[in-house]
Amino acid sequence: MNEQSSHIVRSYDQEQATLLDELIRMGQMSAAQLEAALDVVERRDGNAAERVIANDEAIDALEQQVNHDVIHLIRRGPLATDLRIILAALRVASDIERIGDYAANIAKRSLALNLSPPLPHTRGLNALGKLAVQQVRDVLEAYRHRDGEAALRVRARDAELDTLYTGLFRELLTYMMEDPRAITPCTHLLFMAKNLERIGDHATNIAENIWFLLHGETPLPEREKRDDSNTTVA
Amino acid sequence: MNEQSSHIVRSYDQEQATLLDELIRMGQMSAAQLEAALDVVERRDGNAAERVIANDEAIDALEQQVNHDVIHLIRRGPLATDLRIILAALRVASDIERIGDYAANIAKRSLALNLSPPLPHTRGLNALGKLAVQQVRDVLEAYRHRDGEAALRVRARDAELDTLYTGLFRELLTYMMEDPRAITPCTHLLFMAKNLERIGDHATNIAENIWFLLHGETPLPEREKRDDSNTTVA
Repeated sequence: MNEQSSHIVRSYDQEQATLLDELIRMGQMSAAQLEAALDVVERRDGNAAERVIANDEAIDALEQQVNHDVIHLIRRGPLATDLRIILAALRVASDIERIGDYAANIAKRSLALNLSPPLPHTRGLNALGKLAVQQVRDVLEAYRHRDGEAALRVRARDAELDTLYTGLFRELLTYMMEDPRAITPCTHLLFMAKNLERIGDHATNIAENIWFLLHGETPLPEREKRDDSNTTVA
Repeated sequence: MNEQSSHIVRSYDQEQATLLDELIRMGQMSAAQLEAALDVVERRDGNAAERVIANDEAIDALEQQVNHDVIHLIRRGPLATDLRIILAALRVASDIERIGDYAANIAKRSLALNLSPPLPHTRGLNALGKLAVQQVRDVLEAYRHRDGEAALRVRARDAELDTLYTGLFRELLTYMMEDPRAITPCTHLLFMAKNLERIGDHATNIAENIWFLLHGETPLPEREKRDDSNTTVA
């Protein structure tokens, strides 16, 4: 290998490393946004909610950067495995961007929630939120280390999140029936809970992309699904 | 150009044409699924709902096919413009897949709706649904013809969908307050309406990808947003 080609190879690897760094940073930002959003719901802090909403732009900007870098990497003519890594990065960026959107939406809905008297039901939301944060953090670690087994564990644990969500969905419906004044805030809580359930789905998508970058188009193992809220009647 | 290279060039173009065909077919399937889902809500037809839910698999399978074909095309080493077309195809496929998911979810929730007495509020949902179908069909036409102006019109019209959605959101909240028995079915209607609003967002994403494949990373013009439901209090 002469000096020039070694330089090109190193620089290609560096570009891939930069891409991974950007994705991990993006992921950590979205996990932090989610934690901050859950916190502003608990503390009923409108100013902090506005900051969470405003911070979402930084995640969107990082996704643009990732898209730009992916195009650059593809144009260098990657090998087959590298191409899988690069395409997975593109999809993971899109999932992280959505997680950030859902976090910002939770902060936005907290503003509506603050217009009603405090409800006891945010505790259930907080438990669901903590599990969602854990799923996001764990799948990012699995992604950073390209750990297929850890990714499958995150994917399997999504069923727990679905069970918690379905329980909270039922609970909120009964509160609404008991007290019409709870209808508006509980509706926002329902959508916030749905956001958390969707964040779990995006963590699952990321887990599946880790599988894809490791194993290509080999089908994933079967898994359990437990979100029954779509057909739930209180 | 000798015979062999002319053969390679034609075959590359053919692969691109096949990719576009697959995407248009996928898009038409998701639009048809959405129309069928709105129809089963109106007719309270559980059997037809089950068919809509089952049909979603065919859209998912087509997305897998698109992903597979995109990898194949990228490995052939596309030119800069072609790469934009190919990456846009990947993202458009993902948006269409989500539209299909939302259509299937509307059909699934109709099963829960059928367990309550008929409500007068499905009319509002139907109007919102018709506009969502129109947005999907129009953006697919714009995509087929790579028509940037038509894409921008779809994107601008998303504000109308948001206005209709916010109105329906408020209306459903008041129905819930008037009659506790309406709470469960109206909650499902709220989520169905939200699905339609999200379908509009995915049509907008497709419009923005048409812009990207035509103009690269040039920023899109500003647009109006009108979804106020996140902070709505009845």
